[in-house]
Amino acid sequence: MSHTGRGILTVVSGFAGSGKGTVMKKLIAEHDNYALSISATSRAPRPGEEEGVSYFFKTREQFEEMIKADALLEYAEYVGNYYGTPKDFVFSKMDEGRDVILEIELQGAMQIKKKYPDTLLIFLTPPSAQELYDRLKGRGTETDEVIAKRMKRASEEVQSVKDYDYLVINDNIDDCTARVHDIIQSAHHTTGHEAAMIEKLKTELEAII
Amino acid sequence: MSHTGRGILTVVSGFAGSGKGTVMKKLIAEHDNYALSISATSRAPRPGEEEGVSYFFKTREQFEEMIKADALLEYAEYVGNYYGTPKDFVFSKMDEGRDVILEIELQGAMQIKKKYPDTLLIFLTPPSAQELYDRLKGRGTETDEVIAKRMKRASEEVQSVKDYDYLVINDNIDDCTARVHDIIQSAHHTTGHEAAMIEKLKTELEAII
Repeated sequence: MSHTGRGILTVVSGFAGSGKGTVMKKLIAEHDNYALSISATSRAPRPGEEEGVSYFFKTREQFEEMIKADALLEYAEYVGNYYGTPKDFVFSKMDEGRDVILEIELQGAMQIKKKYPDTLLIFLTPPSAQELYDRLKGRGTETDEVIAKRMKRASEEVQSVKDYDYLVINDNIDDCTARVHDIIQSAHHTTGHEAAMIEKLKTELEAII
Repeated sequence: MSHTGRGILTVVSGFAGSGKGTVMKKLIAEHDNYALSISATSRAPRPGEEEGVSYFFKTREQFEEMIKADALLEYAEYVGNYYGTPKDFVFSKMDEGRDVILEIELQGAMQIKKKYPDTLLIFLTPPSAQELYDRLKGRGTETDEVIAKRMKRASEEVQSVKDYDYLVINDNIDDCTARVHDIIQSAHHTTGHEAAMIEKLKTELEAII
């Protein structure tokens, strides 16, 4: 790791078809300073899903306890199940100096930014709406109806992209991954993140003059 | 150049002894996307100084005309002479897509940030006050009195470092230069800088759904 001090918290969102998943995998494969946040959910595990790897599995009651205890960075209910980000895991990784990435959606991103304004919000997009459509179509796994729904969703999400800190165009996986990495690493050097260093310099300069 | 669109305006300041000059030289030698701003001054040219390279040389009257015409990004009077940054040069380079760097002091940095909040303010520092002292002493060209004056100045400047966007520690010229480069290049991807791209995506998505 090239940094000491507390890790950076980053939320990465993007249109379905933005290539977000691939970029995240590459980022984590190429650098050892990142930790991906693991969500908690009240839905039942599916075959092959592992506790603490895929999700932290909770009962509905346990999840509601976490909400009451303010133990989640953000949460939402989706098709009758809760999904959320446990604070514990995220903060302990950050304290170890790891840069934690949350791959979550718009509403969760906004919840976190409100509570923790230092959080870096990055949105990924293909270079054009046509390219987005072509990628979804090209997968060959989704019906025209599902694709139409995703494009509709994108046209709603785009209204809130300005509330993110960064918009990164995924025209090429390597370039996009490098850009996301540079953005997160640069955040280590904001004067907000370097507040302790500034205090150290103040104290030292007072002592030396 | 790896970007299209308007260039980024960056102010780089730092303690005397921070290695700022060396970092700037390296940055410009290694990348072709940067342009260094050239200051205007009302002081007389010294032997070897070239018009439009070292400075834009102006008479006192000409300089005061520029102040009146709001043709300067910032200016100050120092030992009876004016020094300032002409807008024309900076904005035309930015319009060409070049990232313009201003190597100026704290007061000028604050003047610019007030008028142009998108300006990136970067402050360079050695890793410690002791290291700053050792570098100034190690030059062997300055009297103890001058060194004491510079350390005093640093202890005043450090009070305003929090008003910069980034603090970059110059512990190693190569690392420091790479960090400054990554910070400036990342600024190309802020949602503010990508406002036109966001509008393009909105329009395209409206048309496609």
